[in-house]
Amino acid sequence: MQQRWMRYSLEGLIGFGTLEGDRVHEHRGELFGEHEPTGRVFALADAQVLMPTQPSKVVAMWNNFGELRTKLKLALPEEPLYLLKAPNSWAAHGDPIREPRTPAKVVFEGELGIVIGKRCSAVPEDQALAHVFGYTCGNDVTVADILFRDASFAQWTRAKGLDTFCPLGPVVATGLDPDTLRVKTLLDGQVRQDYPISDMTFPVQRLVSLISFDMTLLPGDVILCGTSVGVGSMRPGSVVEVEIDGIGRLANRYGAPGDRP
Amino acid sequence: MQQRWMRYSLEGLIGFGTLEGDRVHEHRGELFGEHEPTGRVFALADAQVLMPTQPSKVVAMWNNFGELRTKLKLALPEEPLYLLKAPNSWAAHGDPIREPRTPAKVVFEGELGIVIGKRCSAVPEDQALAHVFGYTCGNDVTVADILFRDASFAQWTRAKGLDTFCPLGPVVATGLDPDTLRVKTLLDGQVRQDYPISDMTFPVQRLVSLISFDMTLLPGDVILCGTSVGVGSMRPGSVVEVEIDGIGRLANRYGAPGDRP
Repeated sequence: MQQRWMRYSLEGLIGFGTLEGDRVHEHRGELFGEHEPTGRVFALADAQVLMPTQPSKVVAMWNNFGELRTKLKLALPEEPLYLLKAPNSWAAHGDPIREPRTPAKVVFEGELGIVIGKRCSAVPEDQALAHVFGYTCGNDVTVADILFRDASFAQWTRAKGLDTFCPLGPVVATGLDPDTLRVKTLLDGQVRQDYPISDMTFPVQRLVSLISFDMTLLPGDVILCGTSVGVGSMRPGSVVEVEIDGIGRLANRYGAPGDRP
Repeated sequence: MQQRWMRYSLEGLIGFGTLEGDRVHEHRGELFGEHEPTGRVFALADAQVLMPTQPSKVVAMWNNFGELRTKLKLALPEEPLYLLKAPNSWAAHGDPIREPRTPAKVVFEGELGIVIGKRCSAVPEDQALAHVFGYTCGNDVTVADILFRDASFAQWTRAKGLDTFCPLGPVVATGLDPDTLRVKTLLDGQVRQDYPISDMTFPVQRLVSLISFDMTLLPGDVILCGTSVGVGSMRPGSVVEVEIDGIGRLANRYGAPGDRP
């Protein structure tokens, strides 16, 4: 069933529900367990959108799309290559992405996020999709300057782990076929990325399965699938939107007046 | 004041308190906030030792000790180089370290863990120690085979992120001067590492300060300081103990009968 689940803050209380048009249908119970509608419905505009999930970890893929690999002349990976996005980097739709304290080249990377629904440990590929709850949009923000400036140690964790560098949302959508999806990223309203998920080297079921043989995945955990061509720099004040049909549009501004400490 | 704080499970309830000899003095309140003794005292042997802290993240340093750097002919780093230990890797004193599903060379790395006590964001070096609650022992377990087998992407996160690959504990000790500490690691009772914390390239106050300019550190977060010489492989059944005077001895067995799935 296609549903769009969100978490929100309303009148000081945190809740979750389904988004239908611009109305939120409040639910009670557990997002990844038993739940039912309470009957209460309210306007999305009245609530603050929170991260759609509370992960224990966010795993982020590198070099997982053919078109970007060809462009960058990278080798075909034999196994998924990944890092973790630091918890302090997680942010919601609408949150500002904060500039680093030292001016730097900071890039957006629009990505599909896989949201785990059931605990997965050593799950075979043909059972992996049954452990996926749904999909969200992610922006894998990166300080390009930091990545390779130490010749002996690529600083993936740090370059991608600054506070607010991992917006996720606005919803988790269920019932989608990931192979049909496209990721569009807009910078100040202009389309900069528009690539198909079908170009993924390790598709969803393979990613979930292979990662689960190393790391137990828990309900709410997110796997960011990696990005493709069109990555670019943000300027202070830029608005970045990551849009995937069936999920929605994750919008975040980079920097804000008075944001730099 | 020198105190040794621990978390435990007793009669099905989770609690925390100070360890004095082999007696636990139960406390109520918040470990990193207001707390007071309840008056209840019980034998350590009656409780199950839990991880001494519930971090949002565990940051692990690479190439932070002079003696190991000299041995491996590494360059002096200009900034702290680090990764994150996955939450599924965190484990308590006494928990088994599980073997990977595919046989592999797995090494122990005994380390000092800095436990953050107060939220830190962009904290100057001269104020950093005031944000440290105390110190613990850590074992930064690593699959050596995975690290460099992809030539284009060092797999630090994955090689160090398998389930149970980050034992921490048994306590968090307060009131210690880190520059006076030594880390000893014993493999099956034999000392394999015995190195001084004073050899750290980025000492505690500098590490905490510099990391806090990138990533907000929260109470309970842990910075593993990196390891020095003497790292070695474990065999199934090996017991690894990481011992630091004033903290105690973190003991974990590698593998267990029937442990491999």
